[in-house]
Amino acid sequence: VAVPTVGGDGSPVLALDIGGTKLAAGVVDSAGAVHSFHAAPSEPERGPDDGLERLFELGRRATADAGLALGAVGIGCGGPLNTERGVLLAPLHLPGWRDVPVVQLAIEAFGRPAALENDATAAAAGEHRFGAGAGTRHMVYLTLSTGVGGGVIVDGRLYRGAMGNGGELGHVTVDCNGRPCRGCGRRGCLEAYASGTSIGERAVEALAETDEQSILGALDRPTAADVAAAARDGDPLAVGLWDETVAALACGLTSIVNLFEPELVVLGGGVTRVGEQLLGPVRAEVEAHAVRPAGSPLAIVQSALGDHVGIVGAAAIVYDRVASGLMLAHG
Amino acid sequence: VAVPTVGGDGSPVLALDIGGTKLAAGVVDSAGAVHSFHAAPSEPERGPDDGLERLFELGRRATADAGLALGAVGIGCGGPLNTERGVLLAPLHLPGWRDVPVVQLAIEAFGRPAALENDATAAAAGEHRFGAGAGTRHMVYLTLSTGVGGGVIVDGRLYRGAMGNGGELGHVTVDCNGRPCRGCGRRGCLEAYASGTSIGERAVEALAETDEQSILGALDRPTAADVAAAARDGDPLAVGLWDETVAALACGLTSIVNLFEPELVVLGGGVTRVGEQLLGPVRAEVEAHAVRPAGSPLAIVQSALGDHVGIVGAAAIVYDRVASGLMLAHG
Repeated sequence: VAVPTVGGDGSPVLALDIGGTKLAAGVVDSAGAVHSFHAAPSEPERGPDDGLERLFELGRRATADAGLALGAVGIGCGGPLNTERGVLLAPLHLPGWRDVPVVQLAIEAFGRPAALENDATAAAAGEHRFGAGAGTRHMVYLTLSTGVGGGVIVDGRLYRGAMGNGGELGHVTVDCNGRPCRGCGRRGCLEAYASGTSIGERAVEALAETDEQSILGALDRPTAADVAAAARDGDPLAVGLWDETVAALACGLTSIVNLFEPELVVLGGGVTRVGEQLLGPVRAEVEAHAVRPAGSPLAIVQSALGDHVGIVGAAAIVYDRVASGLMLAHG
Repeated sequence: VAVPTVGGDGSPVLALDIGGTKLAAGVVDSAGAVHSFHAAPSEPERGPDDGLERLFELGRRATADAGLALGAVGIGCGGPLNTERGVLLAPLHLPGWRDVPVVQLAIEAFGRPAALENDATAAAAGEHRFGAGAGTRHMVYLTLSTGVGGGVIVDGRLYRGAMGNGGELGHVTVDCNGRPCRGCGRRGCLEAYASGTSIGERAVEALAETDEQSILGALDRPTAADVAAAARDGDPLAVGLWDETVAALACGLTSIVNLFEPELVVLGGGVTRVGEQLLGPVRAEVEAHAVRPAGSPLAIVQSALGDHVGIVGAAAIVYDRVASGLMLAHG
């Protein structure tokens, strides 16, 4: 049985975020305010039964703390998912979790209707509804994190695509002859250059291929933040890596902008924490090269939701589904 | 004054198509049936006043032939356009035509409300409403012609983007280090490999760079059709060019599919007339590499509208605008 209205009356949402390193739960109201928040390590190797039991316990604590009557439960998780059936198919960041009916289990645990969405898509909904994209009608959200993902807002609503998975924004090609992409098996996807993982891997590869001295050579496993910091210090190898990151992101983002013609691009995820060191040159490149009518505005800004994007996004999908006339699963 | 309903009652549409080589006019009813058709050479060098006078004369003849009361006028033309204001800004295929208020002029000429759309976007609407995409909700139309363009159907409606231009599907990157793209100034766009123009140019370049014998060497300016025919005959240079065309199209289309997650891709334009010689290997590549949930269907088929796609598309935009609740300009 599916009912379209429950949770859409503005009742607060219990938001659950199933990340690879962190489980999080919080109560978020229809204005985007976070009334409670609890998090714990994911430890996905303990399996889905154990993981969801701990997640739902965080949810019960968050609900008790908030002291509000819940309208619905929103769940964000990395894919692949079946959002229609509310099932985690085989999330890449949760090895061994297969065919987990998380929506049904959440309905049983909390006695409220529930909805599942890809976490990057959910973050897009959160930024659109409560963050940097509030009030826009055509928005692209791109997150540069362990992987690269995102979501698109079309005419004010989350774009879900034919099968409910929305866009795979990390898998737009930058260089068809480029680096192998672990995520999809093609070559030269945006994710293969601009994810935190890829930036770190490219640093290791660059160090192995050069005799040049570099600050990064002293680090065991340089991260994207290390590369950015060394580039700020003028380290030539790091500057080269950073310039390549900027070029790849600008190229992939230009393709995305050419295809969707948004008015706003919001960049989120750990890699974007450096702010203008990344956004400045990317903005200049995309503005110079995207195919747009003269005078057509395009803003490229940083995520406004920061660390709460996971649960605010998971809540936003409930509000977005209701606004879009979609059903919430009701058990 | 703008009225939303005129032309949306199912009254036939006078469709006008302003191409670089051909002007066309026809009366198309709300079932997609073409009741009349007239065409003439564009000769854009004679200027917009002369060109539109001849176009409108074709329109008057098409109207008289059809003997039906018109609801509205639909106009398709290559960009850049301002579809909102109904103005041809500076179409690339009509040198010297600048800031032509074609919608206003059509309203004055025919006394009916009118709408203007990018011709590739219009063709997408036509294929969705009356052609290969009838009944689908998420569809991508890609046309490989002089250039590469297309349009996207989202949730059963034409996707227009923030500024009304829809997607620039030819300007998704295949190879960021690749061939310069005349259309946008970047490098390695899909259009730089898979347009008819680019295939011909690549043939000329390949001939200049090799001592190898090739059937194509006997031709003054080999076309995409010549390359395809020579590849069918096993000409090694042509086979190489064709394989590169297939690879570029498959790569660009995979990015497009990853971003929009359509259920159907329709390929149109002159380059696709070879049918399965192009569609077969492209379909295999995209199916193998697109990021899609297991079992998710994706069909890649040829355009069903053929030579009438221009006017059927121009008519479809009127029906689509009305169905989407958008206004038609009314003078």
